[in-house]
Amino acid sequence: MASVARSLTSCIFCKIIKGDIPSFKLVETDFSYSFLDIGPLSKGHALIIPKDHAAKLHELPDEYLADAMPIAKKIAAAQGLENYNILQNNGRIAHQEVDHVHFHVIPKPSASDEEGLVVGWPAKKPAMDELKALHQELVDRLNKV
Amino acid sequence: MASVARSLTSCIFCKIIKGDIPSFKLVETDFSYSFLDIGPLSKGHALIIPKDHAAKLHELPDEYLADAMPIAKKIAAAQGLENYNILQNNGRIAHQEVDHVHFHVIPKPSASDEEGLVVGWPAKKPAMDELKALHQELVDRLNKV
Repeated sequence: MASVARSLTSCIFCKIIKGDIPSFKLVETDFSYSFLDIGPLSKGHALIIPKDHAAKLHELPDEYLADAMPIAKKIAAAQGLENYNILQNNGRIAHQEVDHVHFHVIPKPSASDEEGLVVGWPAKKPAMDELKALHQELVDRLNKV
Repeated sequence: MASVARSLTSCIFCKIIKGDIPSFKLVETDFSYSFLDIGPLSKGHALIIPKDHAAKLHELPDEYLADAMPIAKKIAAAQGLENYNILQNNGRIAHQEVDHVHFHVIPKPSASDEEGLVVGWPAKKPAMDELKALHQELVDRLNKV
């Protein structure tokens, strides 16, 4: 476990980082740990977890967030993936099952709904003035974040 | 357009970065541009795109990859989101529609399949020795990436 790891808890992913639960480790850095998902959606499905216990993405310090995608790139490259999804879920209704931030790297070997991530896309067509009002509201809030 | 932006093309997202196509801009940095999706899955659905034209995540330089998630955090925080998905698709069969890397920040306001990302999860239960063999293969390849 690298020295910058902080605030690890008794959650299952913290235990994997600490080595208290065995895992099929892939890439490890000062800020992140990655390993094979043992309940994969497809062959090679991997998880990248920050070495800091936070339930949701917006609760994590930036240095942990910045570390994740370069690792996803390495894992995708090592697998020679062409079709794959990166997914990070926050909250039960958004399909999060373990309350420790985790990024999925999910190979999509075929178009079949039997393997890989299955995506449903209920797109809307909001009116432009609706988007404009929302945009103004968000810009105001972003200035305060 | 910031000075580090490189290799922009005539693709629709490159045009948005250059300002040739208008957009509802949220956060802009030297490496990334973010804006509201005009065909959102839910209110506040945003996109974060690197200021470099690459079709897939594994083709992007690390500095662009590292920049994306801290922006997703800002957007989620500004919206006060509790339930949301971060999604990045690579390849047509993995639901990618524009061939310029883009990270979706998709609010999930309710459990309904009518709004937000809809996720299907065809999980497998591979044998441990199968995972072990795959792991060894990937570790060997990761050492060469």
